[in-house]
Amino acid sequence: MPSRQQRKGFDKERDLVLRLWSYGFAAMRAPASGARAKRIFYPDVLAAYRGRIFVFEVKYRSEPGPIYIEASKVEKLRDFAQRAGAEPMIAVKYGRSEWRLIPLDECPSTGSSIRVDPKLVEEKGVSLSEFVSRVKGQRSILEYTG
Amino acid sequence: MPSRQQRKGFDKERDLVLRLWSYGFAAMRAPASGARAKRIFYPDVLAAYRGRIFVFEVKYRSEPGPIYIEASKVEKLRDFAQRAGAEPMIAVKYGRSEWRLIPLDECPSTGSSIRVDPKLVEEKGVSLSEFVSRVKGQRSILEYTG
Repeated sequence: MPSRQQRKGFDKERDLVLRLWSYGFAAMRAPASGARAKRIFYPDVLAAYRGRIFVFEVKYRSEPGPIYIEASKVEKLRDFAQRAGAEPMIAVKYGRSEWRLIPLDECPSTGSSIRVDPKLVEEKGVSLSEFVSRVKGQRSILEYTG
Repeated sequence: MPSRQQRKGFDKERDLVLRLWSYGFAAMRAPASGARAKRIFYPDVLAAYRGRIFVFEVKYRSEPGPIYIEASKVEKLRDFAQRAGAEPMIAVKYGRSEWRLIPLDECPSTGSSIRVDPKLVEEKGVSLSEFVSRVKGQRSILEYTG
């Protein structure tokens, strides 16, 4: 049985998937982590739009604060992304605030892990709608009309 | 709790994922169908190799025989594939024989479903190694050396 913490994780991943779907993307959650922990690594969420692929490590915290992701997990995410031809990203949600998406390469490493803190999320993270606009290549249109 | 039938399905999907992975692909199984049956459709397996994406409906039968896939499911697979820019496929395994992969468009429709039978699998299905060679664009090399 999944723990309450795991359930919360699933719910957030599901929320991200549904939002990406509503923007016209295909999106998919990974199977429960019981299987994941064994031989196979899956990203928390994979999304694709007309041949462009993104893989996400999804992090939810009820309060803003630093988030650490182990180097071994980061390595697996990178490996998956490289095989797929995907762009690895971190999706962060603090409490009820909006999703912020950060390219993995923007996150500084502390050696044994990477560190994502509220300042980085603020400075380097983009909202879902901004992300979608960039992927769809409509950014300039939005800049003129928005 | 998943049924014995479902478990068998997971095991086969997992087998396909591991084999694709061993060929250098990124591959991912969908979450258990409890969640899948609700608001979100996921393909059984998604695989990607350097920007090329495939989504699979996975079918295992202990004995060769016709397999029917409902039109509504086919429609959802097509929709997912179109959003993603992916190629929709059926992956069939009869008993202990090898996986055969068939592009969805090769499968005839009966109106309410599509039909995959052993003759079609034999004629239009390709083995995993052949599929991988085609995707990696090494087919001509294999033809000369093999």
